[in-house]
Parts: sequence; structure tokens; C-alpha cells
Amino acid sequence: MNEIQFRVRYAETDQMGVVYHANYLVWMEMGRVELCRAQGVRYRDLEQQEGVLLAVAAVQCRYHAPARYDDEVIVRTTVKRATSRLLEFEYEITLADDGTKLVTGLTTHVFSNASLRPCRLPEKYWAAFGVK
Amino acid sequence: MNEIQFRVRYAETDQMGVVYHANYLVWMEMGRVELCRAQGVRYRDLEQQEGVLLAVAAVQCRYHAPARYDDEVIVRTTVKRATSRLLEFEYEITLADDGTKLVTGLTTHVFSNASLRPCRLPEKYWAAFGVK
Amino acid sequence: MNEIQFRVRYAETDQMGVVYHANYLVWMEMGRVELCRAQGVRYRDLEQQEGVLLAVAAVQCRYHAPARYDDEVIVRTTVKRATSRLLEFEYEITLADDGTKLVTGLTTHVFSNASLRPCRLPEKYWAAFGVK
Amino acid sequence: MNEIQFRVRYAETDQMGVVYHANYLVWMEMGRVELCRAQGVRYRDLEQQEGVLLAVAAVQCRYHAPARYDDEVIVRTTVKRATSRLLEFEYEITLADDGTKLVTGLTTHVFSNASLRPCRLPEKYWAAFGVK
Repeated sequence: MNEIQFRVRYAETDQMGVVYHANYLVWMEMGRVELCRAQGVRYRDLEQQEGVLLAVAAVQCRYHAPARYDDEVIVRTTVKRATSRLLEFEYEITLADDGTKLVTGLTTHVFSNASLRPCRLPEKYWAAFGVK
Repeated sequence: MNEIQFRVRYAETDQMGVVYHANYLVWMEMGRVELCRAQGVRYRDLEQQEGVLLAVAAVQCRYHAPARYDDEVIVRTTVKRATSRLLEFEYEITLADDGTKLVTGLTTHVFSNASLRPCRLPEKYWAAFGVK
Repeated sequence: MNEIQFRVRYAETDQMGVVYHANYLVWMEMGRVELCRAQGVRYRDLEQQEGVLLAVAAVQCRYHAPARYDDEVIVRTTVKRATSRLLEFEYEITLADDGTKLVTGLTTHVFSNASLRPCRLPEKYWAAFGVK
Repeated sequence: MNEIQFRVRYAETDQMGVVYHANYLVWMEMGRVELCRAQGVRYRDLEQQEGVLLAVAAVQCRYHAPARYDDEVIVRTTVKRATSRLLEFEYEITLADDGTKLVTGLTTHVFSNASLRPCRLPEKYWAAFGVK
């Protein structure tokens, strides 16, 4: 499990006065990038040195309560499933202040090469993600 | 069913060279706004005159193939479920050129007042969405 | 001079209830891409086939009045200066409805190769932009 | 002078492989919000409790070198000019690693009420911004 914390940007709100719903997907990405880093994998290197991309195949989000501008939020990310072909991440986004649950999500990713065709994760990365 | 067509913006791509996955949610929103308009409901009026918001409660997306900069894309939107409390929309996003299926999605919305508390859709709008 | 017209997206607003100021830069880009197309140059081909990018070197914007969600807006784009090394575009963004001036802008671009080093525009494109 | 540091998000890149130019405006906003906070002014309270908005009137940016995904960047913000009617901020964005200058900018803001009409900054905030 990885946890990141940051503050909501003004640019992330919409005229409802809350965070625009698509922006939570950006935060989930930040969560999984930092989870990778914590496991010793810099996602940038995976892309640039290995030519392996983590293409998004599916996304599910449930919106429980809205985040607002200047709120401190926490994104908790866990690997839910890991094979040499795909990764699934689970997310819980909460208010840092009082723990209010904001959004929960699930994303599925397929390892892909630079032409966006499915490929396998190089074996040296398996341990980092718990692939067996 | 409503159909809109437009061109992918440069700003919508990421360094994978394809449309960033969160942006499809923006396109789905464009789709449902135009579906509303085609049904005689201007979403802006619903918000401003009725104080009724269509808060996003859940999103599901499946990514089949990537859209690229300058592609012409089509978003087809249908109402899947409509009650006085909630609306569900289904989306199919395709390439205008050859019909390649890019993304399919489903969003669930709860009618909410300005304080973002659940409310009921005023009856005069029921027919537009097929609420019975 | 090129003119495009489109509708403000919900995602483009912020909690002030108006279009977030950075988004006008995205609209200016749409304007110059369409100006290029009208001149017979598809910007996507310039990038992919010629390896020539139009890197942004400077931006100036003045905000006169705010655009709001669902407004129809017009972006008028003109080439202000064109050499084999750089291009300058001028923009006027107005409300389609009543012509209210919203934003005026100026962007300067340097032709660059794939490594983002300055280069010259291939001569076959000079006429399109009025390079002498 | 205020300084913030953070990491470039994947969502902030475009297909050139660098940060999309409009996103630097978002970073400048983060810079001025944190400068305000460091001066004891929470921008959110200014908006909500005082009904005073900092509407953007003009933006100037010069792009010196591109930021890339996962780079650590620093935004340094200073108040350049402050009156009871307007504020000007200056920004320097650099790479944390080696200090490479990425972008410099200047934004002008007009204090506005909720209807976006110009107003004066309440006197109790003058000291924080150096208004005389």
C-alpha cells in the first residue's frame, strides 16, 4: 500500500465548486506512480528504458463525497492483481482532515510496447509488483 | 440516442502519443449535455434556473483502442436508466473514419441541489429523460 | 485569418463559474491548428512526416471578459509574423452571440526538431505561412 | 518570495513528450496560492468569507526549456506590484535537480466581487501583500 497527500488545485475545480470528476483519475495515476517508486520501479524508466507502457484498459470509480479547492487529500493505492500481462490497482481517496471517504476506484492496465501492443512485463520487475 | 462529432485536441494527448485516459470522461460529459439539449433540456438552465445538478456518482470505462491527436471522433450517448432520483448514461466512442471502437462507458448521476444533497428531478423534465 | 466556433465545456470551468484562464491557451492552439489546415498544412503531418514541431516560446494573453459554460465562442487566428525559424499568431476570442471580446492573445513558436532543438521550416511549407 | 516544489504528473505531458504549455499557468497559480498562505492569507477564505476573487487580467510566459514527466520542479513566486485594486506576481520555474530555467511568467490580477466586477482589497489584507 502506498499513500500520497497533496492539496487540491484551483484548476481542478469546476463551477459546481467541487473537484471535476475526471481529475480523480489523474490523482489515481499519481498514486500508482508513487506506489511503483516505493517498490523501486520508476515508471519513467520503465517507459523509456524498457519501452514498456502501462496502458489503461479499464477504470471504475465511485464518488462518495466531493473534494473542494484547497482541501488536503490522501490517495491510498494498492496492487490488487498482478500478472506478467496486467496490473490492477485499487484506490481510496479521503480527506486528510477527518478521513471522509471521497472516491474509491479500480484501474486495470495492460503492459504494452511502444506501438501499444500487449507485451509481458520483463521478469526483473516481477518481484516489485508481486507477479509470480 | 445522441451523436456528436469533433476533433481530438493536442492538449488532450499525453506522452504516449494518444489521448490521456481521463479526457474520455470529458467527452462523455459533452455527449450527455448534447443529448439533454436534443431532448429540449439545456443543462445550464437546469443548474441555474432549477438549482438541480447532475452529480456524478459512478463511472465505468473500458478502453479498446486509443484515439490520437487530430482524429475525428464520435460520441454516441444513450439514456440507460432514468428515475426522478438518478440518471444512467451509456456511451460509445468511435473513430469517425472507420468506426473503430475506442472507448465504452457508463456514468451514473444523482440529481442534487446546490448544496450537493440528493433531490428529485422536477416533474416538468420527466418526459425529456423518459422518467415514468 | 481563420475562424472556429465551438461550445464551452463544463470541464473548462472553475469554481468562479467561468472558464479557467489556462484553457484559453488550449483554444488558441485549436485556432492555429485550424488556420494551418485552412492553409493546406495538417499540423499532425508536419510533426509525424517532417519531424517538425511548433514549440511554444512565448505566450501573452489579456482577459477582457469571462466565457461561461455552454457559451458559443469564436476564436479568430491570424499569422502575425512568419520566418523560416519562427511563427507568431494573434488571437481574438469572442462570444458568438453578441461579439463580446473575451480574450486576446499572442503566441510565438519556434520550429523545432524531435529533440526540441530549433530548426528551419522546410521550404515547401513557406508559402502556406507567408514566409519569404 | 515563496517557493514550492513538486513532481510533474503524467497527465501534464503532451505527445511532444514534454509538459503541455498551458499547464505552467496552473503551476503559477499554485505558486501564488502558497505565497498568499505564507503571508497569512488563505485564498479560499478570501473567496468564501470576503467574496473577493483574484480574477486574472493578463498573463505573460516565456518558455526557456521543457519540463518532462516525473521531473521535480520548483516554482518561485514574488509579488511584483500590489495596490488595493490589483496584484502582479512574477514567477520563475526551474528544475530542482540542476536549476535549469524552464519558464518565467508574469500574471496580473484584479480584485473582483462575486459578480466579477472590480472591487478593492479589504484593508485588513493590505499588509500581507505590501499594499500601501
